[in-house]
Amino acid sequence: MILVSRRYKFSASHRLQSFLFSEQENREVFGKCNNPFGHGHNYEIEVSVRGEIDPGSGRVVDLARLDNLVTSTIVERYDHRYLNEELPEFKTEIPTTENLGRQIEKRLAEAWPSSFPGARPALARIRIFETERNMIEVDH
Amino acid sequence: MILVSRRYKFSASHRLQSFLFSEQENREVFGKCNNPFGHGHNYEIEVSVRGEIDPGSGRVVDLARLDNLVTSTIVERYDHRYLNEELPEFKTEIPTTENLGRQIEKRLAEAWPSSFPGARPALARIRIFETERNMIEVDH
Amino acid sequence: MILVSRRYKFSASHRLQSFLFSEQENREVFGKCNNPFGHGHNYEIEVSVRGEIDPGSGRVVDLARLDNLVTSTIVERYDHRYLNEELPEFKTEIPTTENLGRQIEKRLAEAWPSSFPGARPALARIRIFETERNMIEVDH
Amino acid sequence: MILVSRRYKFSASHRLQSFLFSEQENREVFGKCNNPFGHGHNYEIEVSVRGEIDPGSGRVVDLARLDNLVTSTIVERYDHRYLNEELPEFKTEIPTTENLGRQIEKRLAEAWPSSFPGARPALARIRIFETERNMIEVDH
Amino acid sequence: MILVSRRYKFSASHRLQSFLFSEQENREVFGKCNNPFGHGHNYEIEVSVRGEIDPGSGRVVDLARLDNLVTSTIVERYDHRYLNEELPEFKTEIPTTENLGRQIEKRLAEAWPSSFPGARPALARIRIFETERNMIEVDH
Amino acid sequence: MILVSRRYKFSASHRLQSFLFSEQENREVFGKCNNPFGHGHNYEIEVSVRGEIDPGSGRVVDLARLDNLVTSTIVERYDHRYLNEELPEFKTEIPTTENLGRQIEKRLAEAWPSSFPGARPALARIRIFETERNMIEVDH
Repeated sequence: MILVSRRYKFSASHRLQSFLFSEQENREVFGKCNNPFGHGHNYEIEVSVRGEIDPGSGRVVDLARLDNLVTSTIVERYDHRYLNEELPEFKTEIPTTENLGRQIEKRLAEAWPSSFPGARPALARIRIFETERNMIEVDH
Repeated sequence: MILVSRRYKFSASHRLQSFLFSEQENREVFGKCNNPFGHGHNYEIEVSVRGEIDPGSGRVVDLARLDNLVTSTIVERYDHRYLNEELPEFKTEIPTTENLGRQIEKRLAEAWPSSFPGARPALARIRIFETERNMIEVDH
Repeated sequence: MILVSRRYKFSASHRLQSFLFSEQENREVFGKCNNPFGHGHNYEIEVSVRGEIDPGSGRVVDLARLDNLVTSTIVERYDHRYLNEELPEFKTEIPTTENLGRQIEKRLAEAWPSSFPGARPALARIRIFETERNMIEVDH
Repeated sequence: MILVSRRYKFSASHRLQSFLFSEQENREVFGKCNNPFGHGHNYEIEVSVRGEIDPGSGRVVDLARLDNLVTSTIVERYDHRYLNEELPEFKTEIPTTENLGRQIEKRLAEAWPSSFPGARPALARIRIFETERNMIEVDH
Repeated sequence: MILVSRRYKFSASHRLQSFLFSEQENREVFGKCNNPFGHGHNYEIEVSVRGEIDPGSGRVVDLARLDNLVTSTIVERYDHRYLNEELPEFKTEIPTTENLGRQIEKRLAEAWPSSFPGARPALARIRIFETERNMIEVDH
Repeated sequence: MILVSRRYKFSASHRLQSFLFSEQENREVFGKCNNPFGHGHNYEIEVSVRGEIDPGSGRVVDLARLDNLVTSTIVERYDHRYLNEELPEFKTEIPTTENLGRQIEKRLAEAWPSSFPGARPALARIRIFETERNMIEVDH
């Protein structure tokens, strides 16, 4: 079994503001990330796929098919968006990198079978790099 | 004469929207960068200073003084801000990387003499990296 | 005047083999780069443009137009090619990074006026990164 | 137990062309990677070793010995080569990054005991970065 | 469960010199790393934390608290130090990256409960990048 | 004329301590960089050469010859050294990156004619990256 990973980029803005906190708690917990007008990042996501090498193509995953899936499901959804205002999933949860990771994992998992029947190859892991210093990782 | 460069980072969001264009022209010229809610970037700026080596310190520029100047004048001004809504200079001009560079150059030039009397060392150049692919450069 | 730079990537293979050298001289001068079947690189090119900020768009250069020009003239020409065998310009000169830089500069300069009449903005500089250690730079 | 990783680079060219596909299928599946003259990459491989810290040297693995093994077995074999034409293992399988990873893992595993008797430390994992966007990973 | 990673940097110098080896053996095993006056690196460490997303904050770990812990326990201890001469732990063991990793893991593990009671979230992994080519990884 | 640049790495340690300052002034000016036992960096230097393309080799500079010159003159001199204690030039001046740059420029300029008679190609510029944030540049 081999793990194949591929990276995609998008730029978006967000504001960290909890629905369960008071205004003062939000300022204390999130600091300048709670700034009312939001701020932005160049996000980089890494999608990892696990499977066996296909003897015909010599590949674990058809990269064109993976690109289509990730671009239509994730990149076009989040690129150049203000996550809090424009995405229904962030009307009820905070667009932290952790929640963004869980959303991306859930959306790719749902769309996976239509592109890769029988989960061959299988979705294995999502990583998001918010900046060069901060990364989250969700196993599927 | 030696050139000394130092990099600083900040995250901000912006929307590209010209005051001189119609709504349709804005959409045509700026595409998804014209998205009404803005989007964001991890900006990296490089400030370059030119001067002679001071025989006492062996340095061209006192980095602590430079850090104070750039942080108070630039980083604290733009970090975690939605440039269009929160900064007066972008009420009348578009927050493209080019205009941001001109603003940073103007603001550093104005504040320079209070930190570096006689322009020793001299402000030489500003670079802004908006993403890994896009850079602008303004000579002073 | 502001300098705006943008990077593009392509992968290609080449063989360093001089038409003016004997086989033995070629092996001595180019070493393993003279290997008869060629070898490859992930090339990264940086195209720099110099001009004034347009008051309407807030930009020095229309990036969509620049992308069209560089992609059609350079990236599509060299991407996934074996430079020695497939490009007429390298039938008579060696595809070193230096000659590749001169070719790219020449081709962009020729095509420039059709995309940017009156050289506004002007083509300023080409850089090629052959690996992380090796770079060449051609001023226009 | 500690995992120690070390990176090595080489440049090579390849052509993606399946022996099981027709010419037309090869063009459809591999696109420009099926270009008849091949193209190239700067490959970066990461070799990971797992073991306990030796009390004498304070190290998990003797890096000089690891360098000798990886350089003689892998780097000298693939550096500056056209994989399809010059390597017998790619006469019968396609030199995709996946197959290259399997070959590197197999060759290091075979040579390992002569450098590290008793598999102390043990070969743990091979990663190959074909470009900044694409990575494969093979556990041993 | 989500893994959250954050990177920190410090600069330090060290000398590789075993207490169990003769002078000649030290020179043979460590080469120029045994140079009597030491040499230095820009170290980058990555601290990874595993846990569930807190419904209030949308986060796995309070980054301000993590920063306080890692900075006070690790960065302030090792930054701008000559590890062999200034740190008691390296009076009796060699400051290789492996031993440095074990020290960092041990010190973070000891201090963890005071910042994160009940190990929520849990310390998961330490990585140290000594240079771009060399990395070690310690699981907790 | 084309500019060709090539990067080299070395690891060294230094202490910033002025011979013209009191102990207290040294602590105030240099802070933790004045730490009595020194600290270290992974230095990266970029040597740039300017010249015309040689019609025979298609190159501006013979890279093997440049490597020999820079390695023997600079890398072997400074790699794995404690600059203050082991290099005579830093007995009388502070090993700041600025002074290191001037030393490298002077030493390469002196050795240049023996490798490149008639200064063809010419030494053009030295850059030193002390960390990812700090860079100095000396024109020749």
